[in-house]
Amino acid sequence: MTTHDPAALSTTEQAALGSGADFWSTKEVAGIPSLMLTDGPHGVRRQVGATDHLGLAGSEPATCFPPAVGLGQSWDAELTHRVGTALGVESRALGVDVLLGPGINIKRDPRCGRNFEYYSEDPHLTGRLAASWVRGLQSTGVGASLKHFAANNTEHDRMRSSSDIAPRPLREIYLRAFQHVVRTANPWTVMCSYNRINGTYAAENHWLLTEVLRDDWGFDGVVVSDWGAVQDRVKAVAAGLDLEMPGSGGATDRLVVDAVEAGELDAAVVARAAARTIALAAKAAAGRAADVAAFDAETHHALARQVAAHCVVLLRNEPVDGQAVLPLEAGRSVAVVGEFAQHPRYQGGGSSHVNPTRVEIPLDEIRALAGDGTSVAYAAGFTTDGSGDEAALRDEAVQAAAAADTAVVFLGLAAHQESEGFDREHIELPAEQVELLAAVVRAQPRTAVVLSHGGVLRLATVAELAPALLDGALLGQAAGGALADVLFGRVNPSARLTETVPVRIQDTPAYLDFPGEHGHVAYGEGLFVGYRWYDARDIEVTFPFGHGLSYTSFAYDDLELSADGDGVTARVTVTNSGARAGREVVQFYVARPDASVVRPPQELKGHAVVELAPGASERVSVLIAREDLAYWDTRGERWVVEGGAYEVRAAASSRDIRAAASVEVTGDAFVLPLTLNSTLGEVMAVPGAAEVLGALMPMPQAAADTEVLGVDMAKMLASIPVGRLLSFAGGAVTPADLDKLIAQLNAGRV
Amino acid sequence: MTTHDPAALSTTEQAALGSGADFWSTKEVAGIPSLMLTDGPHGVRRQVGATDHLGLAGSEPATCFPPAVGLGQSWDAELTHRVGTALGVESRALGVDVLLGPGINIKRDPRCGRNFEYYSEDPHLTGRLAASWVRGLQSTGVGASLKHFAANNTEHDRMRSSSDIAPRPLREIYLRAFQHVVRTANPWTVMCSYNRINGTYAAENHWLLTEVLRDDWGFDGVVVSDWGAVQDRVKAVAAGLDLEMPGSGGATDRLVVDAVEAGELDAAVVARAAARTIALAAKAAAGRAADVAAFDAETHHALARQVAAHCVVLLRNEPVDGQAVLPLEAGRSVAVVGEFAQHPRYQGGGSSHVNPTRVEIPLDEIRALAGDGTSVAYAAGFTTDGSGDEAALRDEAVQAAAAADTAVVFLGLAAHQESEGFDREHIELPAEQVELLAAVVRAQPRTAVVLSHGGVLRLATVAELAPALLDGALLGQAAGGALADVLFGRVNPSARLTETVPVRIQDTPAYLDFPGEHGHVAYGEGLFVGYRWYDARDIEVTFPFGHGLSYTSFAYDDLELSADGDGVTARVTVTNSGARAGREVVQFYVARPDASVVRPPQELKGHAVVELAPGASERVSVLIAREDLAYWDTRGERWVVEGGAYEVRAAASSRDIRAAASVEVTGDAFVLPLTLNSTLGEVMAVPGAAEVLGALMPMPQAAADTEVLGVDMAKMLASIPVGRLLSFAGGAVTPADLDKLIAQLNAGRV
Repeated sequence: MTTHDPAALSTTEQAALGSGADFWSTKEVAGIPSLMLTDGPHGVRRQVGATDHLGLAGSEPATCFPPAVGLGQSWDAELTHRVGTALGVESRALGVDVLLGPGINIKRDPRCGRNFEYYSEDPHLTGRLAASWVRGLQSTGVGASLKHFAANNTEHDRMRSSSDIAPRPLREIYLRAFQHVVRTANPWTVMCSYNRINGTYAAENHWLLTEVLRDDWGFDGVVVSDWGAVQDRVKAVAAGLDLEMPGSGGATDRLVVDAVEAGELDAAVVARAAARTIALAAKAAAGRAADVAAFDAETHHALARQVAAHCVVLLRNEPVDGQAVLPLEAGRSVAVVGEFAQHPRYQGGGSSHVNPTRVEIPLDEIRALAGDGTSVAYAAGFTTDGSGDEAALRDEAVQAAAAADTAVVFLGLAAHQESEGFDREHIELPAEQVELLAAVVRAQPRTAVVLSHGGVLRLATVAELAPALLDGALLGQAAGGALADVLFGRVNPSARLTETVPVRIQDTPAYLDFPGEHGHVAYGEGLFVGYRWYDARDIEVTFPFGHGLSYTSFAYDDLELSADGDGVTARVTVTNSGARAGREVVQFYVARPDASVVRPPQELKGHAVVELAPGASERVSVLIAREDLAYWDTRGERWVVEGGAYEVRAAASSRDIRAAASVEVTGDAFVLPLTLNSTLGEVMAVPGAAEVLGALMPMPQAAADTEVLGVDMAKMLASIPVGRLLSFAGGAVTPADLDKLIAQLNAGRV
Repeated sequence: MTTHDPAALSTTEQAALGSGADFWSTKEVAGIPSLMLTDGPHGVRRQVGATDHLGLAGSEPATCFPPAVGLGQSWDAELTHRVGTALGVESRALGVDVLLGPGINIKRDPRCGRNFEYYSEDPHLTGRLAASWVRGLQSTGVGASLKHFAANNTEHDRMRSSSDIAPRPLREIYLRAFQHVVRTANPWTVMCSYNRINGTYAAENHWLLTEVLRDDWGFDGVVVSDWGAVQDRVKAVAAGLDLEMPGSGGATDRLVVDAVEAGELDAAVVARAAARTIALAAKAAAGRAADVAAFDAETHHALARQVAAHCVVLLRNEPVDGQAVLPLEAGRSVAVVGEFAQHPRYQGGGSSHVNPTRVEIPLDEIRALAGDGTSVAYAAGFTTDGSGDEAALRDEAVQAAAAADTAVVFLGLAAHQESEGFDREHIELPAEQVELLAAVVRAQPRTAVVLSHGGVLRLATVAELAPALLDGALLGQAAGGALADVLFGRVNPSARLTETVPVRIQDTPAYLDFPGEHGHVAYGEGLFVGYRWYDARDIEVTFPFGHGLSYTSFAYDDLELSADGDGVTARVTVTNSGARAGREVVQFYVARPDASVVRPPQELKGHAVVELAPGASERVSVLIAREDLAYWDTRGERWVVEGGAYEVRAAASSRDIRAAASVEVTGDAFVLPLTLNSTLGEVMAVPGAAEVLGALMPMPQAAADTEVLGVDMAKMLASIPVGRLLSFAGGAVTPADLDKLIAQLNAGRV
C-alpha cells in the first residue's frame, strides 16, 4: 500500500475519485485502487459477475441475518456486535470493502415501507445497537456506511420529498442516533439520503454534511451518496459529498472540473473530498490484508439462529384452563397452521435482499423439536395471494387444530404487501388471516400465533383472539429454527418491542401527514414520535414500546441513583423470580418534571440485558450519559442540560415501571444575553433592572393594578419587548436610551 | 373635504402621516385631518379625556354587545350586520373614525387567552359572520380594522413568537377568512398582528402585506399595525405597512426619512403609504358628515338583548321523569345558584373591555320572568376567588335547590382566569364549581346549568351531571335578560357551537405544541384544526362543532344539488316538526372522497338560518361558491378546484348529518410542466413517452419483473426522477438527451 498525496493529483483525477466506475465500484485513479461497496445491512449482497445498470443481477450466497426490525428486538448490543463481525467476515470473503449499513432511520410511521431495515422508533436504542454493529463490522477491516443520512422516513416520492422538521425533533430524534454512532463507532462512511431536509437535498445540504456531521460531530470519513441521490454533483461536492454512486460514465466528473475552472467551485473542496476517498482506500487496503477465501456458512447459520431466537418477542401468554399455552411440551400433538410455516417470510424486499446460504422451514423445525412419534399436522389455512379456495383451506385448518392438543398459527404479511420503494396504506393483517384465526381459536382454545412482518401491524383483534402471541417480525434465514426454539422453550424469549403497537392507525403520531404530498412531508408531531406521543397524549396502546414477556418472571428492587459529571448512574437489583433461566431487558426511562422546555413525559436513556438462573439476582448498573439528558436549545443552537431533579424509572417496558427515583443534576451554564427583543419580564428579572428602567420611563401605575380593563396588566406588560417602548412610551424614550440600558444589563452594571 | 395630493407633500410629511400622534389618533399633517381609531370589536372603548401611554384610562359608556365568542354562536350574518351597524352609530356619536375590529383569528387551541374575541375554529363561518359585521359597521361611515393579520393564535410571547405554518394550512385555514372579508366587504383598514409568520414579523412581512393582501386579494385600504407591533418601521414600510400605532413622538418618522435619503427605502413606497392614509382620511371625512350627538342607549341595549338570546346554545336537555328541564315554566319555583347569577361574566379582559351603558343581572331577569308570587331563591354556591366558606355556600345552595321545583346553576370562569395577554394552561372549570353541581344535582335532579366563559371548557363531567345545559359563552351587557328569555322559552334557542368541545384536553389538535417556546409555535396539526382533526382521527367529542338543540325539532328532506360555474347549489326542505316556533341553523359540509390531495374528511362550506312556525316548511337554498371547493396547490402556488364528485351533507351539526348527496364538478385546468425532476412514473403517464424514453435508454428487463429482490420494481422505478438517469444509466444518457426529452414532452411532440 502506497501513501497517496491528493495534492499530486490533477483536479480531473480528484474529481474522478468522487464518482463510481460502475454500479458497485469506484474508479482506480493514479494507482489508488478501486473499492467495492455493496448492500446491505443484514447480509452481503455481492452481485454475481458483471454489474448491470440498476444492480439487480443475482448475488452470491451469503448468510441472511435478522433484518434490523428483528435484530433490534433483541435490545442486545453484544449480539449486534457479533452480527456485525460475521458480516465483516463474509464481506472480506466476498471481496467487499464497504458494506452499506447500518440503516438507522427512526420509524416515524408504521406505514414506511423500509421500516424493516431500521431498528426502532427510539433514537437511544437505535444508536446503541447500531454503534455496536459498526464496531463489529469494522473490526474485520470492512467499512460501514451509516445510512440514510438523514430524515429518510418514508418511501413515497423518496427521491424528491422534503422532510420538513423543526430543529428540536431534527436534533433530538432524527439526528441523535447518527450523532451517537459517528462519535462512538467512527464509521468509515456515511451515506446521504435521497430526500431533502427542510427543502435542501441531503446530498447538497452543507449544513447537514459539513456543519453538523463534520464540524459538530467530528466525522472524518467519506460521505457517499445513496445510489442515484445526486441531482447536482457540483452543489453536492460544495456541500460536503465525497463520493457519488453509481457513476455517470464520467459526466459529472467533467461538471466538477468545469465548475472549478469557471471559479464556481473551490478547488480545495474537490481536493479535500479526494483526500477522504484516498484515506478510505487506505483503510480498505489494510482490511484486505485479512481477506479470506470463504466463510464458514454453517457457523454463521448457527449464529443467525441463536441471534434470531433472541429477537422473538412474546407479546402475550395467557393461561387456558389454568395452563399457559407456551412453551409447547414435547410429546403433545400440534397443529401448525398458515402458509408462512412452510414458506417463511424472513427478510424484506429491495436493495437489502440477500441470497441466503440456506433457509430453515418453521414446520420442519417444529417437527424436529416435537419429538419422535408426536403428531405435528399442517394446514396452509390461507394463501397470501388469494389463489386458493380460502373457505376450504380454513375448514381444513380448523379440523387440524381441533384434533391437536395445541394449534400454532403463522400469520403475517407477504413480500408483495411491504417492501422498499413504497409505503403501506394501512397496518392491517389480511382479513382472511384474522378470520382464519377466529375460526381456529373457536375450535382450539390452546392457540399460539406467530407473526412475520416488516412493519407494525394492528394487533388489537389478534391479541383478543389468541391467548399466546409471538412476534417474529423478520428473523433472517434461521427464522424457522429460532421460532421452534422459542415455541418449545429451548430458548426463553427475552426480546422487546422497539415500536409501539397502537390500538388503531388513527392514533399514530404522523397519521395525518404521512407520507406527505407535493414534495413535502410535515413532521407535525415534532418531538412526540412513538411512545413519546402515546405517553404525552395519554393514548391507550395494544402493546407498549419495550414490551415483551418471558417464560419466567423478574423482580426489581433497590433502585439507587447517583449523579456526577459523567451523568447519572442507576443501579437496580433484578431477580429471576420464576422457575426458568431467562434474560431480562432492564430499561431506564428519564423524566424531567416541570422542565423549562417542552419535553416528552419520559425517554429511554439506558438499558441492560441480564441473564439469570432461577432465583438468581444481579445488581444492574447503567450510566445514563450526561449528554443524553440534554435538550437542543434553539436559542443557543446547542445542547443544554437543564439543572434540577430528574426522575429515573427502572422498567420492564415503557408502561411497566417497576421502580422510580429522583436525582439532582447540575445544569449547564447557559445565559442568553439580553437584547432589545428581550421582554420587560425578562429584563425585570435582572436584579436592579426595575430601578434603571423606572428612571428611564415612568411605568404606568396600571402595571400594578390588576383591575384595569379586567385584565392582568402585569402579565401583559411583562410580554412587551424592551425595544417597543419606543412606541409605547410615545417618544419619551430614545433608541439610544434603550441601547444603553441593554448594554448596562449585559455588563452586569446595574 | 379637500382632495389631497400625496405628491404635494414632502417625504417628511408623508412619513409623518404614517405614525400616530398619540395612543389613539393620527397626526394632522398639511391639512389632512387627524383620525381617531379605537377598540374594539363588541363595543366602543372611546377613552375619556387625555390619552395615556398605554391607553388604559376609563372609557365613555357604550353598549357592550356579545363578544365574538358569543356572537359567533348565532351563526347569523344578519345579526352580525345589525351589531356592526349599531357599533358604527355609537362610533360616530363618540367621534371614532375607525373601530378596531372585527377579530377573526382562528381558534386553534382552546387555551388561547384571546379566543373570546374571535368567532370560530372554522374559517368559512368566521369569514361570513365577519364580512357582514364589516358591511354593517362601514354602512355608517366608520371604518373597520380587520385583525389580527395574521396567524395570531396565542397570547404567550405574542410580540415575538413566530407562527410556523405550512402553506396549505396558512392559506386554507388561517388566511381564508381574511381573504373572504377583504374581497367581499372591503374593510377600510387591516391590522397586522404582533407575531411573526414563518420567522418574519407580520409588520415586516412583504409576502403577507403586499403579495397576498394587495396583489392577490386586491386590498386597497390602509394596513395599520397592532399597537406596538412595529419593531423596525423602515422594514415595515418597505413590506407594506402604512400606519404605525401608536406614535413614537416622531422618532420612527425620522428613521423613514433617513432611510429614503440614504437610498435604503424607495421614496415611492413612502408616498404610496401616505396616499393610502390620505384616502382613509377622505373616507372618514365623508363618514363624519353623518356624525350624531348621541346614540339611543336603550334601543341598543334592547338589540344587545335580542342578539344575545340568539347566541345561547342549548347543549343538552334530557327529560327528568319524562319531562324536559327546559324551558322553565312560569309559576314553578326556581333555585338560582352561583355567583355569576348576580355578578354576570359577560365580556373579556383587555383592549376590548367596554364600559357598558348598563348591565342586566340574570337573577333579576329570572325573577322578572318567573312571575309574581313565584319563589326564586338564590344561593351563591361558591366564590370565584376562594374568599368564602365554600362548604357552607355549597350546603346553602343544596338546600335551596332541594326546596325548589327546578335549580338553575350558573357556572363559569372568572375574569382573572382568562383574558387577553395570557393563555390558559387547562380547560377545566374550577373544581369547587363541579363539586357544587354534583351536590345540587343529587338534591335536585331537575337542574339546568348555565355556562359563562370566554374559552372552551371540558364539559364531560358537567354534561354527565346536568340534564340541561345552556352555553352562554360571553353575551355582553344584556346577558341577564337574554339568558332569562331562553330559560323561560320566550326565545327558543337556536345558537350553535363554533368550536368543538373535546372530551379531554389531551385530544385537542395543538395539545403538544401550544403555546410554543423560544419564539416559535409549530402548527403541527396542519389543516386539521377543530372538527377537521376530530373527524380525521375519529376521536369522540363531548359536543361537536355546529351542535345546538332547540325546544322544537326539525326534519330535513329532499336534498338536491346542482353545479355550475358559480359553484354548487344545495337545496333542502327543512320542516319544523315540533310544537314551538323556532330557528334552525342548516349546515352544509362538503367532502371530496378520494381526493388527489390531503383534505379534511369534511368542511363547512355553507349555512343558512331559517325561522319556522310549528309544522311549517321552507326550501332552503345555499350556493357553495366554487372558490370554496378549492384547495391551495403548493406546486402551482394557486387555488385549484379538483374535478370529480363532491359530497354535500345537509346537517344539524358536524356529527348530525341529515342528508347527503353527490354532484360532479368540473375541475380547473391545471397542468404542471414536466422537468428533469419529474419522475419516470410521471413521464410515462404522457402518451408516447415510453417509446421515446425506451429509444434513449434500454429500460432494464427487471422493470417488468416483480420478483427481483422481492420487490415491486415497477414502483421503485416509477419514483426515479428523469434527471437521475444520468447516474442510473451509467453514462449511456447525456444531459442533452434528457433536456431534449423533457422539451419534447412539454411541447406535446411525442
